Amino acid sequence: MARLFAALIHYPVLDRRGRIVTSAITSLDLHDLARSARTFALDAVFVVHPIPEQREFARAVIDHWRMEPARNFDSRRIEALETLRIVSDLDQALAQASALCNGTRPLLVHTSARTSGATNARELRARLAAPDAPPAMLLFGTGFGLAPAVMERADIVLNGIRGPGDYNHLSVRAAFAIILDRLRGA
Amino acid sequence: MARLFAALIHYPVLDRRGRIVTSAITSLDLHDLARSARTFALDAVFVVHPIPEQREFARAVIDHWRMEPARNFDSRRIEALETLRIVSDLDQALAQASALCNGTRPLLVHTSARTSGATNARELRARLAAPDAPPAMLLFGTGFGLAPAVMERADIVLNGIRGPGDYNHLSVRAAFAIILDRLRGA
Repeated sequence: MARLFAALIHYPVLDRRGRIVTSAITSLDLHDLARSARTFALDAVFVVHPIPEQREFARAVIDHWRMEPARNFDSRRIEALETLRIVSDLDQALAQASALCNGTRPLLVHTSARTSGATNARELRARLAAPDAPPAMLLFGTGFGLAPAVMERADIVLNGIRGPGDYNHLSVRAAFAIILDRLRGA
Repeated sequence: MARLFAALIHYPVLDRRGRIVTSAITSLDLHDLARSARTFALDAVFVVHPIPEQREFARAVIDHWRMEPARNFDSRRIEALETLRIVSDLDQALAQASALCNGTRPLLVHTSARTSGATNARELRARLAAPDAPPAMLLFGTGFGLAPAVMERADIVLNGIRGPGDYNHLSVRAAFAIILDRLRGA
């Protein structure tokens, strides 16, 4: 099984008008993404934020569950949250992931609700299941999605998730869960 | 396409020690489940709570996005939230769903992280895609899952979602998204 990482990016992302902004970290994103990542055996999820106080907030959420009495109350929380690594930018995430892969840089996989005609999850699943598959890192945007500058760095662009109709405004928590299931579900 | 409903149940559910309790409604559940349900074209999601004040709270969350300025700020929110129907118990949900299906009672589909060896999502997807498929209602538990009394009413029991390992403590928001994608994803 190829090593698989994810990154939850708070800058650069788009707001509802398409402007490039920095979004705030949401504690529930940390919990939901960590639990999904742990269920689907990701190697790490990088929480990417350029502002030190926001990174401190994320660390405080994790530390709350690392210590008593929270750890005793529900040890499965910290088991999931320990999947998270808090970093300031994508390069730092890539450096840490590469170090975990004996120096091999993971392929960057862009995700967006708006992409079509690119790689679908079935193709990516097959590629990641190959014996010599390289590690990969799934990139998820908060706010209204990743800024174009992030897509330009991607090695693989994944199609958006579609249902039977036109509406496809999933939460990042839902999209993250679905993509991991498509790539790794039993 | 068979009519498909869901119910988010707050009583009777289990707490971490396996006791039967009533859980509180979480506003983020309403948003995330509504957005996933709208994306996968569910006919309705019933938010089931026995306490009137909790039902009022859920209605207030929905009404906030129905009215200006929130509607103007993001009309896609109310487009999703209008999928929700607030009811006091499962019988009321079944009565309303049956009325939408010309009197046909939907099959009740139990979901749980702990089930194995029962129906898998692929089998259920095929069954729901049949030309004469009956309507169905997926039952989701909050807290630590549905109480045994709910399972006893189910017509179909769906297997839990599994990844490569043993950890499977997904949030209800993540499990809901994955099951809808498995049943209806393009």
